[in-house]
Amino acid sequence: MRGETGSPLLSVMKACIHITLKQGVLDPQGKAIEGALGDLGFTGLDSVRQGKYLEMTLLEADPAKAREQVTAMCEKLLANTVIENYAIDIETD
Amino acid sequence: MRGETGSPLLSVMKACIHITLKQGVLDPQGKAIEGALGDLGFTGLDSVRQGKYLEMTLLEADPAKAREQVTAMCEKLLANTVIENYAIDIETD
Repeated sequence: MRGETGSPLLSVMKACIHITLKQGVLDPQGKAIEGALGDLGFTGLDSVRQGKYLEMTLLEADPAKAREQVTAMCEKLLANTVIENYAIDIETD
Repeated sequence: MRGETGSPLLSVMKACIHITLKQGVLDPQGKAIEGALGDLGFTGLDSVRQGKYLEMTLLEADPAKAREQVTAMCEKLLANTVIENYAIDIETD
């Protein structure tokens, strides 16, 4: 936040990232949850897929730049793009 | 699907569940991701929190009943309500 010096104010931007297994990729965690819910008496369950969810706050003024940065993070570290898809939502505070 | 017999058709309903740590609860996984992203040269990162994301398909005609059932699943198995919050979205196909 350097508004006093005349440089642009950095706003805090929130990024929500969903990382899910691609269709057809086996999901043993999801299957385990499905089984456990069945054992607890929950019926009518067709399928369960487990994914990851990340919330990030970024010091960045431009939503487009924030999205670009988060996309690079997903490609380089957060998602295994061979078996996983990722979706990014950018929210300005 | 028993439409032929005159009983109500069961539609497939999708439930998306976000399970996140409550504010103030330590998140070592999020901290590890934050550190790794910093090591990779990503700057401007303020905080990272990791949560879980579940997608479920239910054989249920009534959205209200589906929500009720998924809430019970969260309370009984999916979320640790002492340290975690959960949010449920019900989508009709």
